[in-house]
Amino acid sequence: MSHNSFGHLFRVTSWGESHGPAIGCVVDGCPPGLKLTEADIQPWLDRRRPGQSKFTTQRQEPDSVRILSGVFEGQTTGTPIALHIDNVDQRSRDYGAIAEQFRPGHADLTYDLKYGVRDYRGGGRASARETATRVAAGAIARLILGRVRIRGALVQMGPHGIDRARWDWAETERNPFWCPDPVAAASWETYLSDVRKRGSSCGAVIELVADFVPAGLGAPIYAKLDADLAGALMSINAVKAVEIGDGLASAALSGEDNADEMRMRDGEVTFASNHAGGILGGISTGQPIVARFAVKPTSSILAPRQSVDRQGHDVDVVTKGRHDPCVGIRAVPVGEAMLACVLADHLLRDRAQNSGRRGGNT
Amino acid sequence: MSHNSFGHLFRVTSWGESHGPAIGCVVDGCPPGLKLTEADIQPWLDRRRPGQSKFTTQRQEPDSVRILSGVFEGQTTGTPIALHIDNVDQRSRDYGAIAEQFRPGHADLTYDLKYGVRDYRGGGRASARETATRVAAGAIARLILGRVRIRGALVQMGPHGIDRARWDWAETERNPFWCPDPVAAASWETYLSDVRKRGSSCGAVIELVADFVPAGLGAPIYAKLDADLAGALMSINAVKAVEIGDGLASAALSGEDNADEMRMRDGEVTFASNHAGGILGGISTGQPIVARFAVKPTSSILAPRQSVDRQGHDVDVVTKGRHDPCVGIRAVPVGEAMLACVLADHLLRDRAQNSGRRGGNT
Amino acid sequence: MSHNSFGHLFRVTSWGESHGPAIGCVVDGCPPGLKLTEADIQPWLDRRRPGQSKFTTQRQEPDSVRILSGVFEGQTTGTPIALHIDNVDQRSRDYGAIAEQFRPGHADLTYDLKYGVRDYRGGGRASARETATRVAAGAIARLILGRVRIRGALVQMGPHGIDRARWDWAETERNPFWCPDPVAAASWETYLSDVRKRGSSCGAVIELVADFVPAGLGAPIYAKLDADLAGALMSINAVKAVEIGDGLASAALSGEDNADEMRMRDGEVTFASNHAGGILGGISTGQPIVARFAVKPTSSILAPRQSVDRQGHDVDVVTKGRHDPCVGIRAVPVGEAMLACVLADHLLRDRAQNSGRRGGNT
Amino acid sequence: MSHNSFGHLFRVTSWGESHGPAIGCVVDGCPPGLKLTEADIQPWLDRRRPGQSKFTTQRQEPDSVRILSGVFEGQTTGTPIALHIDNVDQRSRDYGAIAEQFRPGHADLTYDLKYGVRDYRGGGRASARETATRVAAGAIARLILGRVRIRGALVQMGPHGIDRARWDWAETERNPFWCPDPVAAASWETYLSDVRKRGSSCGAVIELVADFVPAGLGAPIYAKLDADLAGALMSINAVKAVEIGDGLASAALSGEDNADEMRMRDGEVTFASNHAGGILGGISTGQPIVARFAVKPTSSILAPRQSVDRQGHDVDVVTKGRHDPCVGIRAVPVGEAMLACVLADHLLRDRAQNSGRRGGNT
Repeated sequence: MSHNSFGHLFRVTSWGESHGPAIGCVVDGCPPGLKLTEADIQPWLDRRRPGQSKFTTQRQEPDSVRILSGVFEGQTTGTPIALHIDNVDQRSRDYGAIAEQFRPGHADLTYDLKYGVRDYRGGGRASARETATRVAAGAIARLILGRVRIRGALVQMGPHGIDRARWDWAETERNPFWCPDPVAAASWETYLSDVRKRGSSCGAVIELVADFVPAGLGAPIYAKLDADLAGALMSINAVKAVEIGDGLASAALSGEDNADEMRMRDGEVTFASNHAGGILGGISTGQPIVARFAVKPTSSILAPRQSVDRQGHDVDVVTKGRHDPCVGIRAVPVGEAMLACVLADHLLRDRAQNSGRRGGNT
Repeated sequence: MSHNSFGHLFRVTSWGESHGPAIGCVVDGCPPGLKLTEADIQPWLDRRRPGQSKFTTQRQEPDSVRILSGVFEGQTTGTPIALHIDNVDQRSRDYGAIAEQFRPGHADLTYDLKYGVRDYRGGGRASARETATRVAAGAIARLILGRVRIRGALVQMGPHGIDRARWDWAETERNPFWCPDPVAAASWETYLSDVRKRGSSCGAVIELVADFVPAGLGAPIYAKLDADLAGALMSINAVKAVEIGDGLASAALSGEDNADEMRMRDGEVTFASNHAGGILGGISTGQPIVARFAVKPTSSILAPRQSVDRQGHDVDVVTKGRHDPCVGIRAVPVGEAMLACVLADHLLRDRAQNSGRRGGNT
Repeated sequence: MSHNSFGHLFRVTSWGESHGPAIGCVVDGCPPGLKLTEADIQPWLDRRRPGQSKFTTQRQEPDSVRILSGVFEGQTTGTPIALHIDNVDQRSRDYGAIAEQFRPGHADLTYDLKYGVRDYRGGGRASARETATRVAAGAIARLILGRVRIRGALVQMGPHGIDRARWDWAETERNPFWCPDPVAAASWETYLSDVRKRGSSCGAVIELVADFVPAGLGAPIYAKLDADLAGALMSINAVKAVEIGDGLASAALSGEDNADEMRMRDGEVTFASNHAGGILGGISTGQPIVARFAVKPTSSILAPRQSVDRQGHDVDVVTKGRHDPCVGIRAVPVGEAMLACVLADHLLRDRAQNSGRRGGNT
Repeated sequence: MSHNSFGHLFRVTSWGESHGPAIGCVVDGCPPGLKLTEADIQPWLDRRRPGQSKFTTQRQEPDSVRILSGVFEGQTTGTPIALHIDNVDQRSRDYGAIAEQFRPGHADLTYDLKYGVRDYRGGGRASARETATRVAAGAIARLILGRVRIRGALVQMGPHGIDRARWDWAETERNPFWCPDPVAAASWETYLSDVRKRGSSCGAVIELVADFVPAGLGAPIYAKLDADLAGALMSINAVKAVEIGDGLASAALSGEDNADEMRMRDGEVTFASNHAGGILGGISTGQPIVARFAVKPTSSILAPRQSVDRQGHDVDVVTKGRHDPCVGIRAVPVGEAMLACVLADHLLRDRAQNSGRRGGNT
């Protein structure tokens, strides 16, 4: 990853600020001959779109994507695909106060220290609005991945986890939280309503699962699949932790318990467990890829916090404006997109080096 | 990160297998005029070196590093620095059995699936032996970083954590575990002796702290300091999770509790807390950088595990040979080195874009 | 350079086809705090713009550039700068015939062989239209370069060279050819009118000169300033040769004649000649950078040429539509822009590695 | 290309100075399963090796290459291949004088200006000795390229060209100049003997031809095959010009004469000429790739030249020591190697994006 680009062969370069005229990205390296129209991208953007329930920011952005290049007569041509999303509902007036003040937990201070100048409107470049371009790029990545299935779920909201015995993927489409546990979803509704009314916020943990990933993806040592995935997920706004497979919990396991035992079944290697999260030595095993990431509570809250301003005065900051009480909810489709992009990139990389060999992914 | 290189301007390319004639790396992009001899690197390697206590593998490797280029009359010249470490104590005979069998938790299966051929001796390229080159590169990175202080500590061994109230950095140099809590260290000694005698293994959690990091390091959006750090740490063998600041725990916090409040003190911005781990919006705040990573239990254990071989037969695998019962111990200096490399890279990147401006790091 | 991006720290990613809705580029890595509005870019685009004399294509494109990100209140912010240029005068009907036929000298055949699908309208991605985005990026690069002065001139049209004794930079702004020799310019007018009327075309040689380039730019071995410049110039459409300093002619010199002798004058190293073109060992000397590149004759001509079509039939191709009889003319501002981008990139790279040292460029 | 690395997927990182203990490179991204031993590399190094005739430097370097990693039981494993060549005949005493003086035409001045410190012995990093590592890497690239045949020839020595009517590839192996014209070779022998005796030097032009290159290699816009090749060749020491196909001469052609007309023959596209040098729109056509590069006369000559020293005094420099009177001779195998590396890199890149499609190179 390099400044505003990520990926090596499937390479995404994003641009745009929260309150500029538009945001967008350039997707380079996409194979030719894939069927692609805006209709293949828009549904994924709609999942991330704000203003869809009372639990996300009330900013109304249609997030209509336009393909400006790289597609001809409905097919990708192998040239860079420019994706463009106009900003519609900017309302910059909400943010005038933060031009001079540094909101705790936000990037205001650090952008100012680093660059000496920043577009403070709505968080500028540091706004979660940028993640729309990731979702758009991820939609193209999915086309490359063919039958690979990528799904995400919220498995913890604030301090409240789910009961994994009740996990039902279909449930994630039925509640506004992408929660796979209907009982937890119901209780979260009450919890988050209260958080929202108090002008407070909470964090979340998201779990991503990719099924049907071919074995052999990942390029050790410094482009391990899990390393690239960790970087990609950590680059999402507000993410503070990334786990692969058993993650932190694996530290407490014994070697015996952690071993994913193997047996042949119908001529295929099968595993008795998946503590590894589908990755060994940085390379996919063919098992489902499992990753989790933790999102901190939204930093924009109504309760006044101590801070300083650009002139070096102590101030108390109250963040008004429209915000997500739990920004982790909308991080679900973003995480899915990043996983898709990483896998697509590694599929192409593996094809380059290993095509035609045992395990090569053509 | 690209296959076997990492870093953008301070760029390390590593090579070598566990049982080949040597391992090494090329450090490119180092500023000229830094005083550098092997004596600046060797002490860091010695900290990671195996065979120093009964708690690490008994392989005896002097890990003597030689500088083959890029240094003239004791100074770096700005040209690539080749570092070379001979392998001395290979004992390949220990590993003959695994040529055909896939050890659970190891990269045997995935290298075979991906490449169709692998150097199975001692894990080949996937061996933790490769991490010696990271430590060597990290020693050079530290020279670039000047007064930045980077330290690591083992904060959890197997299921056993430390008492942070007893944290004493000096203690990490007094026990074989880099444990900052003398009481925990004593109990770990008993615990790990038992694990080792049983031929079992355990995981660990390592905490890294970098003090005196200048504000302004990190290059959003896709080269955030935390994103690059997450990728760098996850690329270390056996790592399954990375946390920045409060990490996973931040998901359970409220926005109020998570806010690191600021006040001016003596003309400087000071923080009342450091939940963020010294990074906001992907850019360093000037607070200490705090990161943790979890290492899974060593996969090489004496208890037989179910597996398969290259010919597709079910087999039971017992891993003899010399191994670390808790590979997380030796991961401490490796993690420190990766943190140093990431910071050095970002120091140069920031200097390129922001030199001479407010917050620029010259 | 990587697919559709070039530059390492000052990094340009371009997108767009000749007859799509728009073309554009993302300029990443630009230092913050530079004053920038569309008015800083537009004049450079206007110099490259088609339809300004009878000697360039009659396609009427205003080439109005819009800045969509990375600039706030008239200053660069250090975030990616998206530049957007709408395509206005596409007239796709002119090109319907070439959907199935491969025009000799064009990229029709090779895009088809490589990708199996191509946007054939106006050459699609292979159109010289893409070079507008290079010029736009070059305008930003010039801002970074400060007092560095970059100029280009046409020094050969078809077989007709100039008399260097008459070289006058001011003259390049007075004729439609960027010719520095007024006598040659007058005769070229007659020559090119004839070429144009016959529906034929001719090639050209362009010379670029950058004055006031600081010494020390260039990063050996594989990012030599001349190597990066050669790649950048060769990437321009229709370029078939690149020379630095004396170029090809240096092969015929003796070592004695080729030596650029040095003497101290007023405390500075001065050179008696500049056969090297301002670059030694891949690093700038402080002398003017001198480079030349040769452009082949426009491949679109009225005379029928033998070719084949997608179905494998022999055909005779006549290229109608609007074309430049000498595409080398409009390559002058494009070459200048590429030189500016390469220098800006290396200025940032040098600053990263060598800031604060002797010769460092802060 | 990035500092001391080149290539995107087939990636070479080189290190080493002329008079350090060794030089070497790391070849990353090589496909697994290729048969490779030192015996596959050594013959190519032997072609470049100094001291083989009176027309090259008398430095005696066996240039024995050792493979330190990435190969197991005679096969590449897909992990990085470290190549190591010891420096044997350094004789640093020859170069003591140049520690303080800047030789005209050499990189002494610029390295000093850029880095403030340099290994002056034998030119240090700027020595042509580094090109041995390119040749070694090129030998591996050739294995990837399969039936592609890459050959080079000296087509001009000083002012003396060849008669192309007498071109005979077999002849290049029979004279010490890689000259394809036996008559020219004979006269060059006399010419170069005289140059050598006078302590003078001369330049040269090398032509490279790659046959059987599959169509579809090259990645527009900024990774065009010719652009990458131009950068790669210009990165070779002392190169001042690069041409593709007709090169500079194409500027003087008419569009009619420059068109490479096509006809179907036996179901294949065939060309009546190859002015383009096998590349259109940055992508290979399937015709032979033809490139030329010009090498300036060796800068080390016996005649005193005016210069300055590090202390700012005017001095007269005489360069003793062992040198090639025409360094262009030994540039022939180096140019071949760079062409091989560029083609191998693009073969892998094309495979990644286009595998399985029309024109895809599997």
